[in-house]
Amino acid sequence: MEFLGKRYLFTPGPVPVAPKILLTQAQPMTHHRLPEFSDILREIRENLKYLFQTTNEVYFFASSGTGAMESAIVNLFSPGDKVIVVEAGKFGERWRELARTYGLEPIVIKLEWGKAVKPEMVETALKNNPDVKGILIQACETSTGVKHPVKEIAELTRERECVIVIDAITALGVYPLPMDEWGLDVVITGSQKALSLPPGLSFISFSKKAQMFVERSKLPKYYFDLTREKKAYQKDTTAFTPAVSLLLALREMLRRIREIGLARLFEHHRVLSEACRAGVVALGLELFPEVPSESLTVVKAPVGLEVGKFLQLLRDRWGVVFAGGQDQLKGKIIRITHMGDQSPFDLLIAMSALELGLKIMGVEIQLGEGVKAVENRLYSYLATL
Amino acid sequence: MEFLGKRYLFTPGPVPVAPKILLTQAQPMTHHRLPEFSDILREIRENLKYLFQTTNEVYFFASSGTGAMESAIVNLFSPGDKVIVVEAGKFGERWRELARTYGLEPIVIKLEWGKAVKPEMVETALKNNPDVKGILIQACETSTGVKHPVKEIAELTRERECVIVIDAITALGVYPLPMDEWGLDVVITGSQKALSLPPGLSFISFSKKAQMFVERSKLPKYYFDLTREKKAYQKDTTAFTPAVSLLLALREMLRRIREIGLARLFEHHRVLSEACRAGVVALGLELFPEVPSESLTVVKAPVGLEVGKFLQLLRDRWGVVFAGGQDQLKGKIIRITHMGDQSPFDLLIAMSALELGLKIMGVEIQLGEGVKAVENRLYSYLATL
Repeated sequence: MEFLGKRYLFTPGPVPVAPKILLTQAQPMTHHRLPEFSDILREIRENLKYLFQTTNEVYFFASSGTGAMESAIVNLFSPGDKVIVVEAGKFGERWRELARTYGLEPIVIKLEWGKAVKPEMVETALKNNPDVKGILIQACETSTGVKHPVKEIAELTRERECVIVIDAITALGVYPLPMDEWGLDVVITGSQKALSLPPGLSFISFSKKAQMFVERSKLPKYYFDLTREKKAYQKDTTAFTPAVSLLLALREMLRRIREIGLARLFEHHRVLSEACRAGVVALGLELFPEVPSESLTVVKAPVGLEVGKFLQLLRDRWGVVFAGGQDQLKGKIIRITHMGDQSPFDLLIAMSALELGLKIMGVEIQLGEGVKAVENRLYSYLATL
Repeated sequence: MEFLGKRYLFTPGPVPVAPKILLTQAQPMTHHRLPEFSDILREIRENLKYLFQTTNEVYFFASSGTGAMESAIVNLFSPGDKVIVVEAGKFGERWRELARTYGLEPIVIKLEWGKAVKPEMVETALKNNPDVKGILIQACETSTGVKHPVKEIAELTRERECVIVIDAITALGVYPLPMDEWGLDVVITGSQKALSLPPGLSFISFSKKAQMFVERSKLPKYYFDLTREKKAYQKDTTAFTPAVSLLLALREMLRRIREIGLARLFEHHRVLSEACRAGVVALGLELFPEVPSESLTVVKAPVGLEVGKFLQLLRDRWGVVFAGGQDQLKGKIIRITHMGDQSPFDLLIAMSALELGLKIMGVEIQLGEGVKAVENRLYSYLATL
């Protein structure tokens, strides 16, 4: 909002970060090889296992989420390896690009953006390519708001020499993805999504099966070399200088997440996303994704709306920041996230800004119908808090 | 909100403070007698004149607003002086208590809480007491949300040896109170209201006429002695150690206020208060004050509502903080402020929390009617931003 520069961030990463968490970054700088820092690392590693629902180690890098995606590729595979890529949006594309960059042979399951893959499609691809070493997929395709059925797809790999590699950057911590229980081989996330932290950290965990792949992998790696990190972990340190202030914030955030508990965190995102979708539908608008994720709500732009101008109005004049579409979806969708330091009440801001903005842009909607539907969905949830 | 401890403060002081402003307090501590601090003081004094719309000096104390009220009494009057006190709420009471404490003779115009004084009442009191030296009044009586007609009352003092002393703690910066233009003799405010700062600073300015009263005043004073501060100002310093970090925040906030401009600040509060009242009325609720101030909206508690439990539900379970009534109004009203670092969108949070909370407490209201009315009022304003 122009008035005092107040901003409301509803982009699907970065997301709003709680001031108390931000301020943990303002502690005096410490050195990462001191014994006190080893204590911090041990605590973080323990709590990351809780978040990933795994007994495996979770590694982290000072990098964006893409760094951990690259790390998965270079640690698991060897040149010429065949991998199935589910490409249903911008981040599916990224898997394909990464695979090509490192000389893998991607078998691409290409879907219209907005569609979710069906397990049968992957099953067919596996049958046609029995020598496939990995399946590269998003749990949530952030560019379209689609949720892919990773649990069912993971089951297809069980009896094969093949691992499933899940970009869960906008999914882990949003909805259930129990790594060990579902047999997910590799799970990846980033700090600026459901973890409600600033960007700058990425995370990755490998199942026992995936660790065997790591031992055989022949791709070149240095910064993202997991074996190096594993050795460092054994000495309670990291291979390279970690992002100290971000780790202090991470420690604090992981404590909060344990305190809140994953079940409540999942319920929170579920209620927010259901309430937001109810509001969108009540306004007579259409949802974009075939199978919507709880991480963000993606709305089809109404016919005739200049999405760029609409987003600019909200952002520059009111301080409310939504995301538009990327690449082929530019001008066609509006994305509103439910991740980050948001309470259910923040959804009223998002929904009213959506309504008011559309109305000012000339879209025929009934002011108030969206927020009313949001309140009706929130009612039973808020009554239980 | 319990989820991540996120809070939404709608109390009529303290009010939400912008993080950027809060962080100016985290600058390295400096010493208040250094030349660089004199520069800061000069800038603050200049910009305070803009806020008060006066060419007179504005003094400040490290104190709550009550400190500046006490300062007005001890600097203007002498024992036995007659003063008219408009007592229409808790802060009117405070004027009477202060007057009594210092041996003045208060002539109290006592009104039912929720009523606004009429200029004729003061005129009659002046006629009956031609030797009255001062009129002590609130611009906005925060305990009831009432706005008193201080402009009209100031006019009554023009030809008399009598000054009007205005507690504008929840009014200055909210709606027009041009000190010089309206001939307001003494105007008082505090930092934690329309100035959108943390508590800890109070402000006071004296007209030329009031300054003559200061010269004759015989009440004892030391910390709140204006003459002492005036001398210190001449040397670009303060009489006692000022609240350094708060002043750094004040400097920043005053810069913002000049940048925004008083006209827009007043419009902002006007629109927010109008929209809030529209929402309250749309829910079938009643407004409490006879003449409502733009600083806060005061709602009559619906019959049967346990206000304490309602406020606790919102505060402890959802993180939304309203104020109840004080003293005789305890359990009878709900107060929602429009001051502080709020954008129009924050009003959607307040209104939806009001609706949802009332509904959960069993009050018969139509969920969504309040927010709809709010949006309808905001629409034309937001279109102009």
